[in-house]
Amino acid sequence: MSFAKKILLNESDMPENYYNIQADMPNPTLPPLHPGTKQPIGPEDLAPLFPMELIKQEVSKERYIEIPDEVREVYRMYRPTPLYRATNLEKMLDTPAKIYYKYEGVSPAGSHKPNTAIAQAFYNKAEGVKKLTTETGAGQWGSALSFACAQFGIDLEVYMVKISYEQKPYRKVMMNTWGAEVIASPSNKTNSGRQILEQDPNSPGSLGIAISEAVERAATSDDTKYSLGSVLNHVLMHQTVIGQEAIKQLEMTGDFPDIIIAPFGGGSNFAGIAFPFLRYNFQEGKNIRCIAVEPASCPKLTKGEFRYDFGDTVGLTPLIPMYTLGHTFVPAPIHAGGLRYHGAGAIISQLLKDKLIEAVALQQIECFEAGVKFAKAEGIIPAPEANHGIAQVIREALKAKEEGTEKTILFNLCGHGYFDMSAYQDYFAGNLVDHELTDDELYSDLRKLETPPAA
Amino acid sequence: MSFAKKILLNESDMPENYYNIQADMPNPTLPPLHPGTKQPIGPEDLAPLFPMELIKQEVSKERYIEIPDEVREVYRMYRPTPLYRATNLEKMLDTPAKIYYKYEGVSPAGSHKPNTAIAQAFYNKAEGVKKLTTETGAGQWGSALSFACAQFGIDLEVYMVKISYEQKPYRKVMMNTWGAEVIASPSNKTNSGRQILEQDPNSPGSLGIAISEAVERAATSDDTKYSLGSVLNHVLMHQTVIGQEAIKQLEMTGDFPDIIIAPFGGGSNFAGIAFPFLRYNFQEGKNIRCIAVEPASCPKLTKGEFRYDFGDTVGLTPLIPMYTLGHTFVPAPIHAGGLRYHGAGAIISQLLKDKLIEAVALQQIECFEAGVKFAKAEGIIPAPEANHGIAQVIREALKAKEEGTEKTILFNLCGHGYFDMSAYQDYFAGNLVDHELTDDELYSDLRKLETPPAA
Repeated sequence: MSFAKKILLNESDMPENYYNIQADMPNPTLPPLHPGTKQPIGPEDLAPLFPMELIKQEVSKERYIEIPDEVREVYRMYRPTPLYRATNLEKMLDTPAKIYYKYEGVSPAGSHKPNTAIAQAFYNKAEGVKKLTTETGAGQWGSALSFACAQFGIDLEVYMVKISYEQKPYRKVMMNTWGAEVIASPSNKTNSGRQILEQDPNSPGSLGIAISEAVERAATSDDTKYSLGSVLNHVLMHQTVIGQEAIKQLEMTGDFPDIIIAPFGGGSNFAGIAFPFLRYNFQEGKNIRCIAVEPASCPKLTKGEFRYDFGDTVGLTPLIPMYTLGHTFVPAPIHAGGLRYHGAGAIISQLLKDKLIEAVALQQIECFEAGVKFAKAEGIIPAPEANHGIAQVIREALKAKEEGTEKTILFNLCGHGYFDMSAYQDYFAGNLVDHELTDDELYSDLRKLETPPAA
Repeated sequence: MSFAKKILLNESDMPENYYNIQADMPNPTLPPLHPGTKQPIGPEDLAPLFPMELIKQEVSKERYIEIPDEVREVYRMYRPTPLYRATNLEKMLDTPAKIYYKYEGVSPAGSHKPNTAIAQAFYNKAEGVKKLTTETGAGQWGSALSFACAQFGIDLEVYMVKISYEQKPYRKVMMNTWGAEVIASPSNKTNSGRQILEQDPNSPGSLGIAISEAVERAATSDDTKYSLGSVLNHVLMHQTVIGQEAIKQLEMTGDFPDIIIAPFGGGSNFAGIAFPFLRYNFQEGKNIRCIAVEPASCPKLTKGEFRYDFGDTVGLTPLIPMYTLGHTFVPAPIHAGGLRYHGAGAIISQLLKDKLIEAVALQQIECFEAGVKFAKAEGIIPAPEANHGIAQVIREALKAKEEGTEKTILFNLCGHGYFDMSAYQDYFAGNLVDHELTDDELYSDLRKLETPPAA
């Protein structure tokens, strides 16, 4: 017991600022465009949906943005989160690599999502917003925002994809427990919902439809705004508390990462752990490899195209410069619901285009195998999303063994799998399938795109 | 932010010994009796079921029993656990009371149960045991032991009450993920199971039947032993790491508890938090009120009789001096599965008889109301068992407000409710009912008892 298994920080070591990577990127992101005029949008275009402070953060070039005391106060419920040395996994793999993981599953909602949910709830509350709307698929994001809204006394309407609403009743109950109203989408509460229901009364819903409903409700109510759980610059920035804490924690061990790994859906998990470390690459000549791991069923980073595209399926949002498979791309229903998103957000896409980060796509069976290994060794049963990161960690650790090199690997264990046991059940029953996408499946949505190229 | 929300300890502050309250009890417990001879049992009677070290611990009068390094090594995965100041709940209740809670839900299995599961797995492994058997109802205990057995490379057979096996498939998958074999009980693997199935092929099972199957398997196999998650002296003692840590953590705040509260099923939760503090009462003249909270549907402490009774329904175990409702008592299917046990274990029963601890019985709706309040205030959604403790905390905090006294209340939040959302669903749907037991419902099983009185 010569080393610490958990590396803990005091509350006083919790970051005081968000780190804004836009201050340090070698090439800035391209501007988002208005979906109608195709011209760069201004703050007034976003004002119906977001409070002004978040709109400012979205385009800020300030390196540090102070975390309000009220937000830090709620963070203290679970932050600083522990950094673990995965000693048992190292032994199981017989690798010379040192493996560390930051564990965000200790938050009340069980994932990293509250890091931005709390901030967004606070900034909305501060500007007099009475109610937020949002969408949720698998339920992670809706749960996090429900928890955060309860903390600040804001109402919340969650539009939950109807098929998830029916298949995942416990996620709904969790949101109810924190006081949120959960509505199966498509619903009769919005024009968008009613339109869909007229065409198909039995529509199972989709994330795209749920976004449309949530956005419509916010746009048409005075004291209601909309909240998103990933993709946007300010959302990714709020997650940088993860990496900033990890920097302090690794300093306590004397180790420094050679490789940083995180699963990739919309980018908030990856940004949270990787962005604060990328500064060492940009400013101190370090060469940390930062690897985003996406599911092979939705490979926008490894097989998508860098161009302007919509953030939602229906095409209501601004056009964002992104690696995308096309906003109408519908990935196979794999069990990592949080990774089934067609595009990547402006910052991540620019970094990938500039070859400052790496990406890899993995099949789901390898990921579940990795997750079960991890659970047996380290005790924590990871969320299916997190398993994607773990599978890549195992690949790198075995490579280090083969090469006889001692690497230090850091990954973000973004959440536990307590609400995803049905996915493990399918895995054990042999019901999961891997599927290599054909060119037609991959590119037919991209070919239909009429949005402007990203120059 | 002048005070800490979370009071954390370093790994080096983790207890080095279990605290054995048998060294300090004013009156010792009465001895367990052989079910056949009705004479006090000796170690040899227990040897087929338990390793010798645990049999020794069961009767030891040593004040401290050293925690082996190998056990502490696994504890480090989640221990020391945080102590929280429930500032938001205090505000919500507008009480002058200070409320602290120790949070055991951070363990991989999500409850305090691994504290003894890890120790039991280790001691069995150390004596060459290859496989353990156990029973589980709701699944908390089975999960904890599955996790622990994975850590020490021991096989595990869990006999899971068939109706739970069918209604709670995710608990089963959790145990499978850690490598345990889970068998619906009654099963064809044992004589006991086959007997039951012959009489009733559709038997939904019961904890009593599951115990019989697990005990039979252990008793009839050379390298297999049996493991229990509560009630027994050594099991309760392993939980005292909770209270020992809480003592150090409260020292850091300058506060000392006036009242300690924990839910009560078999006693492991209550013992864990209360026993180390009771030493201050026994040896330093302090007067901490320690309150065990049981469900009104299973009120052995408040309405049971102190006498010898069996630990299991079938009547295979030694006779234990206990507050009991009779070993054939079947409580209503309330949603706190972990509290539905007919008796209380020897130490707790002696302490209650000697009026050194208090007990109270609460109806479940009040408990769920309390749990939802707690979730909104403090973020964590508690297990239904834990809600019983929280309801009593709220009663005491409101009483302090009424009386204008500043009390310090400490309670053990033994686990989270992520696997119990169906219970919350029933609560929100108005499907929970409270029920005042009639004398006939309460005492008819007791009247049938032919076991010896406890003198």
